[in-house]
Amino acid sequence: MRSVYVAGVGSTTFGKHLDRSLRNLGAEAVSKALADAGIDRKDVQAGYCGNALGAMLQEETGVGQHVLWEAGLSGLPIVNVENACASGSTALHLGWQGVASGLYDAVIVFGVDKAVMPKGTPLKVGAADMEVQLGDIFPGYFAMVAQKHMEAYGTTLEQQAKVSVKNHDNGCLNPYAEFKKPLTVEQVLGSPKIADPITLFSCCPNSDGAAAAVLCSEAVMRKLGTKPIRLAASVLTTGIYDNKRDFTSWEIEEKAAAEAYAQASLGPEDMSIVEVHDAFSICEIVHYEGLGLCAPGEGGKLIDDGVTALGGRVPVNPSGGLLAKGHPIGASGVGQIAEIAWQLRGQATGRQVEGARVALAQMMGGSKEADARACNIHILVAD
Amino acid sequence: MRSVYVAGVGSTTFGKHLDRSLRNLGAEAVSKALADAGIDRKDVQAGYCGNALGAMLQEETGVGQHVLWEAGLSGLPIVNVENACASGSTALHLGWQGVASGLYDAVIVFGVDKAVMPKGTPLKVGAADMEVQLGDIFPGYFAMVAQKHMEAYGTTLEQQAKVSVKNHDNGCLNPYAEFKKPLTVEQVLGSPKIADPITLFSCCPNSDGAAAAVLCSEAVMRKLGTKPIRLAASVLTTGIYDNKRDFTSWEIEEKAAAEAYAQASLGPEDMSIVEVHDAFSICEIVHYEGLGLCAPGEGGKLIDDGVTALGGRVPVNPSGGLLAKGHPIGASGVGQIAEIAWQLRGQATGRQVEGARVALAQMMGGSKEADARACNIHILVAD
Repeated sequence: MRSVYVAGVGSTTFGKHLDRSLRNLGAEAVSKALADAGIDRKDVQAGYCGNALGAMLQEETGVGQHVLWEAGLSGLPIVNVENACASGSTALHLGWQGVASGLYDAVIVFGVDKAVMPKGTPLKVGAADMEVQLGDIFPGYFAMVAQKHMEAYGTTLEQQAKVSVKNHDNGCLNPYAEFKKPLTVEQVLGSPKIADPITLFSCCPNSDGAAAAVLCSEAVMRKLGTKPIRLAASVLTTGIYDNKRDFTSWEIEEKAAAEAYAQASLGPEDMSIVEVHDAFSICEIVHYEGLGLCAPGEGGKLIDDGVTALGGRVPVNPSGGLLAKGHPIGASGVGQIAEIAWQLRGQATGRQVEGARVALAQMMGGSKEADARACNIHILVAD
Repeated sequence: MRSVYVAGVGSTTFGKHLDRSLRNLGAEAVSKALADAGIDRKDVQAGYCGNALGAMLQEETGVGQHVLWEAGLSGLPIVNVENACASGSTALHLGWQGVASGLYDAVIVFGVDKAVMPKGTPLKVGAADMEVQLGDIFPGYFAMVAQKHMEAYGTTLEQQAKVSVKNHDNGCLNPYAEFKKPLTVEQVLGSPKIADPITLFSCCPNSDGAAAAVLCSEAVMRKLGTKPIRLAASVLTTGIYDNKRDFTSWEIEEKAAAEAYAQASLGPEDMSIVEVHDAFSICEIVHYEGLGLCAPGEGGKLIDDGVTALGGRVPVNPSGGLLAKGHPIGASGVGQIAEIAWQLRGQATGRQVEGARVALAQMMGGSKEADARACNIHILVAD
C-alpha cells in the first residue's frame, strides 16, 4: 500500500440549514475541497459519500451522485456509505483504500447529513433495534457510561462539565462551529437534565452540514504543490458485542487505536492534536483513556490539569468537537479531517495549535449490545 | 492488483418473506456462502453489505453489522453500501478491491433487501428526486425506452414479450426463483398495461431476499480447494447525465462494458452466460446491444433467433433474471454472482449451460436525467 495525502479540504458551517438540501450542502463542501486542492475536476477518479440519515429523514438515495453532479463531477465510480456516526470517516477509509492500493491517484471523499430533528425527538439511527424500541437510546446509554465511570474511578460531574466548557470555548474560535457562546461549569450542570447525570449542555446537537477532502497519491500531491499532509493510518473496525460490559471503556476503540498506532509507527505521546467523538461530555473522557492519552480512570484528571485544552500538552477537539462545532452525523468524521488539515497547515486562525505535526481523529457509529457498530481511527502527519 | 476468486456463494429464495427480517434473510445467505466456501469464520477479514431500502422501508441502519452478527461474524471492518439496484454489485466491487489490493485475503460480500410493497405502490428509490415527484417513475421511464426502441429499430411488442416468456421458462427451472410458472406471449401482452407498452408480466416484481459471496485471494482459494472461479473484471461507474437522450441505449453501460472487457482481456464473443438487469423486458433487449452481444437495434432479432435462450449461443438470465427470479433490490447483483458460480461449477441443475466457462453480470441502479446513477459489470472465468 502506498502513501496517501490530503490535498484539500472544505466544509460548510455546521448548524441549522433548514432551507438547504443535502445536495446543496454537499456540493458546497466538495467544491471548496476541490478548490483548496487546486485539482482539476477531470483528475478526480472516484467519489465516496458518507451519509447516515438521508434515506430515513429526507427519503433521498444516491446522495453521493446528486452531490457530485451538483459539484460538477460525473461519470466516475461513486459509492454511498452508511455506518451511522462513522459514515463520513468510513467514506474516508474507503477513499484511502482506493488511493493506497494504486487503483486511483485522486479521489473525493465527503460526508453530508441534515440531522436537525423536531425539538425533543430522538435521532432515528437504530430505530429498528429492539434495544432502541425498549428505550435504550443514546442519552440513556451514555448516562450509564457516565454513572459507571463515576463509580469506578471517581470521575466527577465537574470534570464532565469542564469538557463541555472547554469545547464551547474552542467553538467560539471556529467560524464553522454551530455554537459560539462560552459556557461555565455552573451553566452546564444547571442546564435541564436529559438522563442522569447528562444535562442538555453536555450533549452535542443534531446538526446539518457537510465536509469534504481530496485524497491523492504522492505524485499528484507534488504536482498540486500542496503541503504534504499524510494519512499515516486509516482503520475501520466493528464491535464484537460480547465485550466486558463494564461500560467504562470501549474495546472497539482500544483495538482500533492499537491498530492505527502500529500502522503509523506512532504512539499517543506523538499526538499534537486529537479530535474525538464527544457526542456527550463523558465520551471525551473515556476516549482520552481508550486512545492512550492517559491511563484508565485518569481521564477526569486530564481535563482538570488542562492537558487537553488549547495551549495544553495535547489539545483535544480544538474545533469545538461535536459538542460545540455540531454533529451533522455523516459529515462529522470528514469535518475532523478538515480541522486537522487546517491545523497541520497552520491555517486554524484563532485556535491554532502551534507546531502541530501529528494528529488523530476518532469516530464511532451506531450501538449494539453495549458496543459500537463501527469505529474509525485516522492518523495524519505533516511531513 | 492481484487475482480475486469467488470461493463460495449462497442465497435465500427470492420472493415474499413478510415474516422475516433483513438480518434473518441476510444471515441465511451469508451462512450458506461461508459453508459453501468451507471457510472458517475467523478467516473472513472484512464485510461489505449492499442494501438499498432498509433505512427507508424498515427504518434499519447498520444492516451489514446486524446480518454478520446473526451469521456469527463480528470485530472486523464492515461497510454498508447504497447504490440503488446496484447496491449489491457495488458491495461486490468494494470486496473485489479489498482482496485485489492485497489488503485482505478473504472477505464476505452480500446484498439484502425487503422490497415487497403494498400493491400498486411505486418503489421508494429516488423519492426525493424532482423527476420522481413529477411522475417520472421507473415504469414510465422504461416505457419511453421501449417506445423509442420500437420507433428507432422496429423492435416489436412480441419480441419484448418473448424476453419475459424466456425468463419465466428459466425461472421454472430455478429453485431460488420467485415465479415458477411459464407464460405465453399472449399472456404477457394481454396482462394489465402499466405504462404503454409495458404490461404487468413485462415488469419484474419487488421481492424480498438475500445473496452472498465469499471472495478470496488465490492462496486462500487453493487452501480451501474450491474450483477456481476468477473475478476477471469488476467495474463501477456513474452516469454523465448529459447523454444523447435518445433513450435507445445507455452510455453508462457501454462505457462500463468496454472497461470490463479490457480489464478481462475478453470480448462479448467469449461469454457463455450473461445475467443482466431485466427490470422490464425491454431492458434485456437494450442490454444485448449495450454489452455488444449484437449490433445496436438487433436485440429484438437476438430473442427471435433464440440466441439468448437456454441452449442458444449465449444464454441470458438462465436464472430467470429479475423478471422471474425476482428483484430484492440490494440483493440482485450478488444473486447474479451466485447463479454464475453455480453455472461455472456445473451445479445449476435443470438449467445448466453446458461447458460454460466465462460469464458476465450487469446491474444498473437509480436514475438521473435519463441516465443511471450507478452501473456495475463483473466478468467471471472458470480457470
